[in-house]
Amino acid sequence: MRSINAEDIEAIALGASVYGTGGGGDPYIGKLIAMNMMRQHGPVQLIDVDTLADDALVVPVALVGAPTVAIEKFPSTDQLLGALRSIEKYLGKRATAVMCAEAGGLNSTIPFAVASQTGLPLLDGDLMGRAFPEIQMTLATLHGTKATPMALCDDKGNSVVMDTVTNQYTERFVRSLASDMGGSACTVLYPMTGSQAKRTTVHGSLSMLQRAGETLIAARKNKYDSVAGLIELLGARRLFDGKVIDVERVTAGGWNRGTATLAGFHGAGDSRCQVRFQNEFLMAEVNGAPVATTPDLIAMLDVETGEPVTAELLRYGLRVTLIGFPCDLRWRTPAGIALAGPRYFGYDVEYSPIESSSAEA
Amino acid sequence: MRSINAEDIEAIALGASVYGTGGGGDPYIGKLIAMNMMRQHGPVQLIDVDTLADDALVVPVALVGAPTVAIEKFPSTDQLLGALRSIEKYLGKRATAVMCAEAGGLNSTIPFAVASQTGLPLLDGDLMGRAFPEIQMTLATLHGTKATPMALCDDKGNSVVMDTVTNQYTERFVRSLASDMGGSACTVLYPMTGSQAKRTTVHGSLSMLQRAGETLIAARKNKYDSVAGLIELLGARRLFDGKVIDVERVTAGGWNRGTATLAGFHGAGDSRCQVRFQNEFLMAEVNGAPVATTPDLIAMLDVETGEPVTAELLRYGLRVTLIGFPCDLRWRTPAGIALAGPRYFGYDVEYSPIESSSAEA
Repeated sequence: MRSINAEDIEAIALGASVYGTGGGGDPYIGKLIAMNMMRQHGPVQLIDVDTLADDALVVPVALVGAPTVAIEKFPSTDQLLGALRSIEKYLGKRATAVMCAEAGGLNSTIPFAVASQTGLPLLDGDLMGRAFPEIQMTLATLHGTKATPMALCDDKGNSVVMDTVTNQYTERFVRSLASDMGGSACTVLYPMTGSQAKRTTVHGSLSMLQRAGETLIAARKNKYDSVAGLIELLGARRLFDGKVIDVERVTAGGWNRGTATLAGFHGAGDSRCQVRFQNEFLMAEVNGAPVATTPDLIAMLDVETGEPVTAELLRYGLRVTLIGFPCDLRWRTPAGIALAGPRYFGYDVEYSPIESSSAEA
Repeated sequence: MRSINAEDIEAIALGASVYGTGGGGDPYIGKLIAMNMMRQHGPVQLIDVDTLADDALVVPVALVGAPTVAIEKFPSTDQLLGALRSIEKYLGKRATAVMCAEAGGLNSTIPFAVASQTGLPLLDGDLMGRAFPEIQMTLATLHGTKATPMALCDDKGNSVVMDTVTNQYTERFVRSLASDMGGSACTVLYPMTGSQAKRTTVHGSLSMLQRAGETLIAARKNKYDSVAGLIELLGARRLFDGKVIDVERVTAGGWNRGTATLAGFHGAGDSRCQVRFQNEFLMAEVNGAPVATTPDLIAMLDVETGEPVTAELLRYGLRVTLIGFPCDLRWRTPAGIALAGPRYFGYDVEYSPIESSSAEA
């Protein structure tokens, strides 16, 4: 167990942008909310997954819906607390700890606000080891753990508790309701016992986000290649260096979907890289050959600042380094690939681990 | 209190077709389900609203969604029981009686099946005194009674309990979820105390359905004008006699919306009547002048058999009598007209009570 204070959130939010792989919502908002709450209510105790009692009740708290909306409709921790209390009432049990549903994006910082406000410890772990756009895309689903009972609360005071037969149904219902609730909503989902959490989480993932953020901050301060240290830390591959020369984008079905095209520099001006995204960056191709695909992680970093670039903010002229790094190995099982591999997202390629990628190391 | 047996359902279902005013779902399915259940579990005790204890818990049970779907996806009373148990768990209290949400259509017979299966009495009353397509369109809403906590169950085993700040939000969420659940779902909504039920229901409405059905059956047996007796019973006006010569129909946003045109007979061949519907028949015009509008009731009856015609089954060549009859007077208040008057449905006319209609009496 260690204590996280408001100032630590800076690095965690930056790391969450890297792991957000272009999606997962703007961690800047999550950072503001978490810092503000921690300045009022004090630091958060981050606990190791292994220290949980087997019968503990661990509750992931998250925002769902269109991340863009959260910028205008600022989420309130009171709604998250409302969702938490609904689940506690439904289960007839108080929560022992809160947890992040994903490592990456907004949902890696918002839970700090809830932990601070309630005084509950926060688990150093999450359900994906990255960010994914759909509710059933978790290691918990792979382990047979249900996303329900699941509570959803909006800013008007509406609340819904659901119990579904599959996590795919949870996703379907939540997608409609989040839209009806104005585009985004607060949720508590995948409530689980300590022993389930030990099996279904990526242990230590929040610490990993913090280290990733600290690495970028240190590089920025010391003015050396801001990406090199991160690549080493993550065991990543440098997939492409280039300039954004085109962005095709469709906003459809609640998705931010499209392709960014990069043109190489460093005497490689004819070389092209295409980055396909659906909220998150999901596939990268260099001169037509895939070099990285989901469930491995693909991050795009500003060459000058090391700052991660989100798919929403992609624009002509950005000079970026594209990196790929390995996902949790459970995602590479046939069930994991079926749940979140390239074909699920409509890209007709075989998954191939990033370590065996033909891209330059 | 009186006992209703399986054979009585015949007349009640027929009366429910009249009060269904062209919508409300096919009462034939409700009839089959209710009769089948009552033959297994015995008759239903129909109780007067006034006999309820003030602290009784009364729970309306209903199907929601597209009525057409119910024909293919036969509703099961087990889902309704599931919804009932969810609400009982949420409120920490057992139900004292079940109730019909609407008088008209499917939802006036299905509750007999639940009452028979559970052994609970059924209230002789409902929340509208007719059928309406949206959840907030009840006298309960006019009295400030909430539609939630509300439970929704589907045939796969999914269940949702919601608590909304307005009954309009209940409608919005339910409309999405019913679609996600395959087009229709089972629900328990507007749980209320006995004293609330006394204020917010139309008393005796199921008995009224039964009398309406019995009147049509008697007329059919005795081969006299099958509509005359019904008109007298309902205090109705005969609005038009004619043949369906055109039906325009759009199925959009979950609605069956359109206009039927009738050409007069009896030497009135030039006369035209237009019947506008959105699931239910909502407005009738004769030669361009409105003669009846929602919230008053408009029913279309087959001239030969007296059998009510639904908006879904409207087709060229049907020979029909159109009648209009008064709604519960609470619908005629400004709040009632705002909730379910012609303008709410997009018809730009003033509501005028059917009794003052210029149509022939």
